[in-house]
Amino acid sequence: MITQNKGAILILSGPSGCGKSTLLKEVYKDISDYYFSISTTTRASREGEKHGVDYYFVSKEEFEKDIEAGNFLEYANVHGNYYGTSLKPIMKALHENKLVIFDIDVQGHKIVRKKLNDIITSVFITTPSLKELEFRLNNRSTDSKEVIQKRIINAQEEIKSFLKYDYLIINDNLQEASKQLVSIANAARVKSKLSSLTIIQDWLEA
Amino acid sequence: MITQNKGAILILSGPSGCGKSTLLKEVYKDISDYYFSISTTTRASREGEKHGVDYYFVSKEEFEKDIEAGNFLEYANVHGNYYGTSLKPIMKALHENKLVIFDIDVQGHKIVRKKLNDIITSVFITTPSLKELEFRLNNRSTDSKEVIQKRIINAQEEIKSFLKYDYLIINDNLQEASKQLVSIANAARVKSKLSSLTIIQDWLEA
Repeated sequence: MITQNKGAILILSGPSGCGKSTLLKEVYKDISDYYFSISTTTRASREGEKHGVDYYFVSKEEFEKDIEAGNFLEYANVHGNYYGTSLKPIMKALHENKLVIFDIDVQGHKIVRKKLNDIITSVFITTPSLKELEFRLNNRSTDSKEVIQKRIINAQEEIKSFLKYDYLIINDNLQEASKQLVSIANAARVKSKLSSLTIIQDWLEA
Repeated sequence: MITQNKGAILILSGPSGCGKSTLLKEVYKDISDYYFSISTTTRASREGEKHGVDYYFVSKEEFEKDIEAGNFLEYANVHGNYYGTSLKPIMKALHENKLVIFDIDVQGHKIVRKKLNDIITSVFITTPSLKELEFRLNNRSTDSKEVIQKRIINAQEEIKSFLKYDYLIINDNLQEASKQLVSIANAARVKSKLSSLTIIQDWLEA
């Protein structure tokens, strides 16, 4: 007798401004039994950001102690600030057969993919064009001209990695993109590789 | 400007008795713009089978002429009868951005995978156990004891290939399995590899 719904990982990446957060908010109601992975960072919290919701905010010393102890699935130092994904809560969620959802960048995806390839489904989310991305970044007016310029330069690099992802969502229509993401999330839980080889023995015997 | 919904292929395999046909009937209403690939065979048609619905029934001579002409995506000779998948209608459907659905065996999957890997999503469908498969085969009472025995021996071999498939559906509950299959079908249309490398240029430029 064999059964399904083992823990799995869903990785989402995409340039800032692609609408990832809005999309995620939209689909949560349609995805059951998930755990959204919260990153740990040493950067200062911004206005409105909450510890344990937006990030786990820790000191540089704490972060480096965790690096030493091998507590991170992946981490990076970006402009002097550490960002990382703690291994423990993810392993716990996987053990509870949850779908672990990550919002990480192209570099983070590369590292996690290498370590946990068989249980990962990954999605690259983008606007239909660079122009549309610029338009959205300018319109949300949360960032300075300088920051927007940096995000656009990053986006031009990031888009080149989309083929390393299993799926590509072109976020032009929120409803359509949501349907695609929910489908990918459902499919992520029945990846054949989630089942180990021993499954064959189980199937034959009981 | 980049867009989606290119043609894609969805391959379904699974032992006779796993409930593939029932499952397919159930999901068709929820999958849009698909083309179900009909196999060509030289075996005699059985009672109730229709040319162009269940199979394309052709003579051995016609089939061998098509082999010579390279008209098959894959074909096999099973117990003296040819079975094959014609290339032309599939290419037409892909060109029309349809989801081409195949019901083929493990060998067929292997061949098609080799030829069209980037646009394929494949699903292995099974009962929760061998016992359950035997039960279903005995219950549907369409096959002789001999045929059932042959199907069971085949199934024991086929199950070993499930890791070559992208997804595994354990068809225990029709509603749950249908939901999984529809999700996989939707996801199949946004596989990142459906988009060629030129997409990056398009994204940057327009």
